[in-house]
Amino acid sequence: MPLPTRVKIVEVSPRDGLQNEKDFVPTDIKVELVNRLSAAGFPNVEAASFVSPKWVPQMADGAELMARIERRPGTIYSVLTPNLKGLEGALAAKADEIVIFGAASEAFSQKNINCSIAESIARFEPVAEAARAAGLRVRGSISCALGCPYQGEVPISSVVDVARRFKALGCDEIDVADTIGVGTPRRVREVMSAVSAVMDPSGLSGHFHDTYGQALANILAAMETGIAIFHSSVSGLGGCPYAKGATGNVATEDVLYMLRGLDIDTGIDFDAVVDIGQWMAAKLDRKGSSRAGNAIAAKRQG
Amino acid sequence: MPLPTRVKIVEVSPRDGLQNEKDFVPTDIKVELVNRLSAAGFPNVEAASFVSPKWVPQMADGAELMARIERRPGTIYSVLTPNLKGLEGALAAKADEIVIFGAASEAFSQKNINCSIAESIARFEPVAEAARAAGLRVRGSISCALGCPYQGEVPISSVVDVARRFKALGCDEIDVADTIGVGTPRRVREVMSAVSAVMDPSGLSGHFHDTYGQALANILAAMETGIAIFHSSVSGLGGCPYAKGATGNVATEDVLYMLRGLDIDTGIDFDAVVDIGQWMAAKLDRKGSSRAGNAIAAKRQG
Repeated sequence: MPLPTRVKIVEVSPRDGLQNEKDFVPTDIKVELVNRLSAAGFPNVEAASFVSPKWVPQMADGAELMARIERRPGTIYSVLTPNLKGLEGALAAKADEIVIFGAASEAFSQKNINCSIAESIARFEPVAEAARAAGLRVRGSISCALGCPYQGEVPISSVVDVARRFKALGCDEIDVADTIGVGTPRRVREVMSAVSAVMDPSGLSGHFHDTYGQALANILAAMETGIAIFHSSVSGLGGCPYAKGATGNVATEDVLYMLRGLDIDTGIDFDAVVDIGQWMAAKLDRKGSSRAGNAIAAKRQG
Repeated sequence: MPLPTRVKIVEVSPRDGLQNEKDFVPTDIKVELVNRLSAAGFPNVEAASFVSPKWVPQMADGAELMARIERRPGTIYSVLTPNLKGLEGALAAKADEIVIFGAASEAFSQKNINCSIAESIARFEPVAEAARAAGLRVRGSISCALGCPYQGEVPISSVVDVARRFKALGCDEIDVADTIGVGTPRRVREVMSAVSAVMDPSGLSGHFHDTYGQALANILAAMETGIAIFHSSVSGLGGCPYAKGATGNVATEDVLYMLRGLDIDTGIDFDAVVDIGQWMAAKLDRKGSSRAGNAIAAKRQG
């Protein structure tokens, strides 16, 4: 299949990235991050999570963040909502899209939320219904779609089953997420093709972690099956909770560099993203995880 | 084009990797590295460089190294030979293959060796002839094939022209080298397809640096044009002299991880390579540059 001419990048650093930081990142920095991402032209920013601060203290400032950011017309601001309480927060915060989630791995579901995959997704039914009634977009994220830290291999049929359940809840978009970055291109193609039978590829996204260095090859493979939405994180913010010190989310700079080379339009200002990545890494007092970002920064310094 | 079922990996860490180390790596370590690589099953190891120690002091121990390593049947040991003096060294050292080289960028050639591309390759004529007469394989490496640190873009016709000159010298194998890691998959496909008109793809290799994080996607794209030989370096040893602190050679662990996922045979023991990469990074007192290697090492530590 020919590659898409346009790709939508969902920037997940404010949520999926900073949620994995050991220390709480000050709200001021988060606000500046989201504002800079909007200004750089991202069509979609995953900005916050309305979860209990007991579970995820890093995201406790979601309401304040959403109140303080400048909304750019053309940018969709998404927030994670684990339940109806989270949805209330999302509605009050005027989010554009909620994200609900479920694992394709039974072992992961049991271990993480102590219930079956089917139960976990059924619980989202009133959340999705209320969100849609309020005019919000609903996105369903399938974690462990390429592998699981507990059970290892995940059957493609399980991924398709979760996609079918999300579709039934009226999801506008479904993410195939390689939570632990173990996937390789052939498996990505197989999974994406199988899920495409349930959900039109135009509503499917690839969320690939770069833990094993495979993310860009996986994005290329996914584009060859008609996928044109990808998640990424500036400077590769995020890490991997299942392998300490390993890389997590694929770096936005690396993705944009590849897409630019393929003449695929994203509407995003690449140079601005390199700046944001370097700025954010400096704020977190570390070297960034984007190879393209670091190479360009090194060249700038001569 | 269907992906190849078998790929030959040329491990370049002892030469291209360690040549870029600031400090001289002790010969004992180099010998152990080459021996461990051979034992892991690599079919080809780029072991040394017979250049003037004035130019490249890091490689001054090539003769001693070649005398001390254990030769594994089935492994080709290659050495760089810039001239007839280098070839003498290669013959005395009983190398299996010599590597000659030329840039596809006129600016790079002028700046680095102060002569035109055509002149630089013509100088290799007696070297290649004598090597072939002695029964050695000859490999020609085209540097800056995807871009140049001085002139930027490199015309595909220049790459094809260098390939033609190497072919005329009787090269058994020709490397298309992305010396500064700027290439992206479409350009890789275009260059590989163009060069395939001069040299049968079975004798073409891709040498991709991961400076911008593109190497694995580029390898995937190259395989889709029929290329089945790739260069890599354990733990991503090598760095990039044109962008300090940036990554250089693609990490062998990342490549093998992808190929394993694609069911492509290499004959190489993946776990042994992860061990070698971690051992080598420790010897150099740094964290390795292989994402797959680091993730697996992190998982082992729990």
